Amino acid sequence: MNKKHGPIMIVNFKTYPESTGRKALELSKTLQEVQKETGIHMVVACQATDIFLLSQHVEIPVFAQHIDPQLQGAHTGHDIVEAMKESGAQGTLINHSERQLTLSAIEQCIRRASNVGLTSVVCANNAVTGSACAALDPDMIAVEPPELIGTGVAVSKAKPEVVTDTVTRIRDVNAEVVILCGAGISEADDVSSALRLGAEGILVSSSVVKAGNPKKIVSDFAKALLLCR
Amino acid sequence: MNKKHGPIMIVNFKTYPESTGRKALELSKTLQEVQKETGIHMVVACQATDIFLLSQHVEIPVFAQHIDPQLQGAHTGHDIVEAMKESGAQGTLINHSERQLTLSAIEQCIRRASNVGLTSVVCANNAVTGSACAALDPDMIAVEPPELIGTGVAVSKAKPEVVTDTVTRIRDVNAEVVILCGAGISEADDVSSALRLGAEGILVSSSVVKAGNPKKIVSDFAKALLLCR
Amino acid sequence: MNKKHGPIMIVNFKTYPESTGRKALELSKTLQEVQKETGIHMVVACQATDIFLLSQHVEIPVFAQHIDPQLQGAHTGHDIVEAMKESGAQGTLINHSERQLTLSAIEQCIRRASNVGLTSVVCANNAVTGSACAALDPDMIAVEPPELIGTGVAVSKAKPEVVTDTVTRIRDVNAEVVILCGAGISEADDVSSALRLGAEGILVSSSVVKAGNPKKIVSDFAKALLLCR
Amino acid sequence: MNKKHGPIMIVNFKTYPESTGRKALELSKTLQEVQKETGIHMVVACQATDIFLLSQHVEIPVFAQHIDPQLQGAHTGHDIVEAMKESGAQGTLINHSERQLTLSAIEQCIRRASNVGLTSVVCANNAVTGSACAALDPDMIAVEPPELIGTGVAVSKAKPEVVTDTVTRIRDVNAEVVILCGAGISEADDVSSALRLGAEGILVSSSVVKAGNPKKIVSDFAKALLLCR
Repeated sequence: MNKKHGPIMIVNFKTYPESTGRKALELSKTLQEVQKETGIHMVVACQATDIFLLSQHVEIPVFAQHIDPQLQGAHTGHDIVEAMKESGAQGTLINHSERQLTLSAIEQCIRRASNVGLTSVVCANNAVTGSACAALDPDMIAVEPPELIGTGVAVSKAKPEVVTDTVTRIRDVNAEVVILCGAGISEADDVSSALRLGAEGILVSSSVVKAGNPKKIVSDFAKALLLCR
Repeated sequence: MNKKHGPIMIVNFKTYPESTGRKALELSKTLQEVQKETGIHMVVACQATDIFLLSQHVEIPVFAQHIDPQLQGAHTGHDIVEAMKESGAQGTLINHSERQLTLSAIEQCIRRASNVGLTSVVCANNAVTGSACAALDPDMIAVEPPELIGTGVAVSKAKPEVVTDTVTRIRDVNAEVVILCGAGISEADDVSSALRLGAEGILVSSSVVKAGNPKKIVSDFAKALLLCR
Repeated sequence: MNKKHGPIMIVNFKTYPESTGRKALELSKTLQEVQKETGIHMVVACQATDIFLLSQHVEIPVFAQHIDPQLQGAHTGHDIVEAMKESGAQGTLINHSERQLTLSAIEQCIRRASNVGLTSVVCANNAVTGSACAALDPDMIAVEPPELIGTGVAVSKAKPEVVTDTVTRIRDVNAEVVILCGAGISEADDVSSALRLGAEGILVSSSVVKAGNPKKIVSDFAKALLLCR
Repeated sequence: MNKKHGPIMIVNFKTYPESTGRKALELSKTLQEVQKETGIHMVVACQATDIFLLSQHVEIPVFAQHIDPQLQGAHTGHDIVEAMKESGAQGTLINHSERQLTLSAIEQCIRRASNVGLTSVVCANNAVTGSACAALDPDMIAVEPPELIGTGVAVSKAKPEVVTDTVTRIRDVNAEVVILCGAGISEADDVSSALRLGAEGILVSSSVVKAGNPKKIVSDFAKALLLCR
């Protein structure tokens, strides 16, 4: 996936009960419907155990939430790119704040994902680590500015320089990488703000997975992305 | 699974190309055939991405190679028991030497596996850590005595006290846990030796996965287990 | 150190500013004074950087807060037993809840500490992991029952079975190991309760380090230990 | 420390017996002698337990081999910048290949080292991770090109593009950072080659620590650095 796809929306299913197994499949189908209705590209990042199931039943890309840098071989209990690929994954998150890796492992994972044709989405926790990730040349970077996490501050209400500074620092190092906003998105206004400030897509999770009516919130986000296209 | 099943044979598929995806399915069917022919209980421990596929197509138990102690929720990229269970797993390896956990995590994983009905197989690297694992009360302990790993020493040729000492120390702490021999098994003689010295089953990997004729070696191992029943 | 010393009090200096560098030295001297006044054995567990300084200036034993299982050699940035010993340490905490280790590493650390003559104090987070630690045969086990951490519940007010159950499970496995109570101690009554319920000493931290008058609280704890001797 | 110091030589003492405790002090004095004789700036990176001892007795800067990103407080067994500073350290290695950190931790360590006035030397395993480190703006980057590690290939005999490519990629991102060559240095010719190819100093270990006559090899390296000034 790349810039030509227009704005992208990745939904991280994490290990929520509402997005595991059969429920993961239902939610993926909802995302697929919204993609058909809006043309906005949807991606689901599910647990390793659900990749095969989902990729067999939906057409939108299924991503892993994590990969390990290990090669094929005597590496019990590791998530390697070849297995992800064969089970149907088209990409993977790397270094999510809940599953961090060493710098060396991040670089290996990006390279190995690329080797087998998986799209790499590296997560960065601030503008500085974002620029470091940019130097590693992944396909996408999802930035979670600390000012937007946990504090309940939404992108649309945050000081705009938090996002623009991050985008600027990443662009100084890498002109091609797709930049996603990975925090502070809880309503459609936040989506519009993120894109206006330079992001080219969003990485969301609980705002969709935990929603009473996921289809409505996904549609709202998609429409906001559509307006920014 | 427990002592009533008689001798058990778990095959760890690791991340070998010969035991990933479709090839994992083929090898699982081979194990199933041997179970039907011999009555020896076979278990496959596959990658997380293959659990759903295998559990849909074979009747022998499919185990995970690793679980994390995280609960359901905001834990991106973790392997949790509920997801393993729903994807079809009936048990899991825990603390394999290639995927080690903290003591606290091992205890939580055993407890959480038990809560959802997954069989727990904890790996221990020597007699002392084996006895510590016994205190944690898992369903099974797979011991890999260091004298039998890497050095190329087979159980059948090793000093018998290496295995008997391990069995004795575990039994001092826990009378019920099923003890598997997890190293030094490369031919049928090693299987017989392991059981004669007190093990109640085997955990094998490359000797089966990398075999030119896996069915033959699995059959040989199963027959050796049968004789010890 | 062993049972013959009578009740033991270990003060974990953690990385508090009040117990780093020169302030660590002052606090150690306070502990030494109380030992002289009461006869109760005091131990300070300080940061690696302070071991040499403290062991040069106080006579009470100085312990490390952590060791790694690495051997001497090409292991940059690790805390090995030989260096701890040469710098003046007489013992070490192992597997503190804030610095956890794999089961295999815990076993190696205990063994390696013993090889160079360092007293090993393994921390366990509950009764079950405590009994696992007992099987590893360290010199002491410091147990932090979860019911006594963070919840603000003091030993003296907790259900007594929380502590007695832990002591019983450890004793089932190991008759010799010294058992310390490592949580729920904020006043002298808690010390008395812990010992009455079977503990043979205490591992404390903030209640001493963060005290307005550390000498008073240490004296109070020592007197409570003295009464239980 | 910065570019104004001219070529720099850091000796990583690791956890070798030849560079622990009293022997660490002797070797530090040797380095100091060579600094006095040649004017080349010498730095010793010793174990945490030896920082106080060495910094009391030698005038050359003493660096830590590792720091953790934890703040002062309830963090048992961690190596924090304030304690390093107070014990006499003037800088620290960060993310050595034998003690790797997450990307987020590397960024925090650099920032926290800077806050207390410690010089930061981040280690990178190849040209790509080196450029990522450059984006984090440490004081120095020590690069260990994989082609020069373990393979026994010396800088002076390696393809020069291995080093020049690394230097170029780092310079593209950061004009100020001091670049050290951290692998492939076993004799004086390698030092000259490294500097000719763009490095501004060297990070060495076993070639000095394990030498029969450390003073001779240190002098040889210093003279090679002197010629390149």
